[in-house]
Amino acid sequence: MSGPVSFWQGTGEVAVAVRQERAVRTREMILEAAAEVFDESGYAGASIMRIMERAETTQGAIYFHFKSKEDLARAVIMYQAARLYGMPQEARGLQQLIDLTFYLAHELQRNVVLRAGVRLAVEQSESGLAEYSIYQEWIECFRAELSVARAQGELRPEADEDAFAAVLVAGFTGSQVMSQIASGRADLPDRITRLWRCLMPGIAAADMGERLVLDPQRGREWAC
Amino acid sequence: MSGPVSFWQGTGEVAVAVRQERAVRTREMILEAAAEVFDESGYAGASIMRIMERAETTQGAIYFHFKSKEDLARAVIMYQAARLYGMPQEARGLQQLIDLTFYLAHELQRNVVLRAGVRLAVEQSESGLAEYSIYQEWIECFRAELSVARAQGELRPEADEDAFAAVLVAGFTGSQVMSQIASGRADLPDRITRLWRCLMPGIAAADMGERLVLDPQRGREWAC
Repeated sequence: MSGPVSFWQGTGEVAVAVRQERAVRTREMILEAAAEVFDESGYAGASIMRIMERAETTQGAIYFHFKSKEDLARAVIMYQAARLYGMPQEARGLQQLIDLTFYLAHELQRNVVLRAGVRLAVEQSESGLAEYSIYQEWIECFRAELSVARAQGELRPEADEDAFAAVLVAGFTGSQVMSQIASGRADLPDRITRLWRCLMPGIAAADMGERLVLDPQRGREWAC
Repeated sequence: MSGPVSFWQGTGEVAVAVRQERAVRTREMILEAAAEVFDESGYAGASIMRIMERAETTQGAIYFHFKSKEDLARAVIMYQAARLYGMPQEARGLQQLIDLTFYLAHELQRNVVLRAGVRLAVEQSESGLAEYSIYQEWIECFRAELSVARAQGELRPEADEDAFAAVLVAGFTGSQVMSQIASGRADLPDRITRLWRCLMPGIAAADMGERLVLDPQRGREWAC
């Protein structure tokens, strides 16, 4: 009798696993459709109805996964960081910090989920989200590279890593806002190059100058 | 007969002048009411009806002065720069550039027209304005101080004034976006201090370091 029982048990487990996997896929499809709509129209211009049509799903499925448009916007902001597959997992210091900013510049040009997350983060007074955590995450990510850089003797003795990490996020954020308006983000890698030229003397040890490469192509190599 | 004629002519001129002055005042009242509503609710959340109620004027008066909500938003973006009465007219170099950024940080905390203009400029993908000119104006304003600074020998020989002016606008823009979310702009002067600490080594000549003062209070003195 053990055969049929375990057969049914097995089928039940498979069915549950299939349903769970389908729920995960549906959630991702909704998030990606929401990202496209938020990227195109901003928070105020997006509606659950348009997201539903774009995701080719039902209103019930959307509300099963997300309580409200605000909840969906918050999920898109959080989802984008998790989607940067190409990003190195381990901090390696100042050159990797530079390469990371170029990687983000390229990803913003082609990754709609990152773009929507950044747009929602910048325009969040529109949505009333007041979600600082996305900035905090980037500050901590940049800060980790600076800690490794400090240990490797790459930083100026008087440089303040905490201040610099937040200033770099601010400089990147402002650059991407301006680049979006000026050129639809086409000139973002050039703006990031100029940002680094202005910031480098304040962070890099005197002998690092010639060893560090400001090459927008390096970030492109990590692309998904 | 010349008496009565010139009397009537005179009265007519006065009447025209009064009407013109009233039109200018009405336009300003509409712009200030629009700034309040855009500051509170963003572009998408603002309606001509709410602006009309806030300005205590008629729909006819609004459409006499402005073609559309988009036209009104563009006027608010442009109006804010003209309203910075306290700002010095003449470029004086690096210290004045520093003081200017602190002045703007304080003005953003209390000047609703500047705040609305900046919000509309940052969130302009929301409104479809694509108005880069406000960033260009600030770049040129900062650039003028840098030219004077260069002439006075205050800059590093290798510093690039054009790049630095745009990077400073980007750093300020990103700082104010992050400060707005983190603290309702209460910590903006501190963020600008840290921005300058990171940027200073890349722009100021070696012997300038001790002569330049990073004092958020200095900008406050210019306040309207």
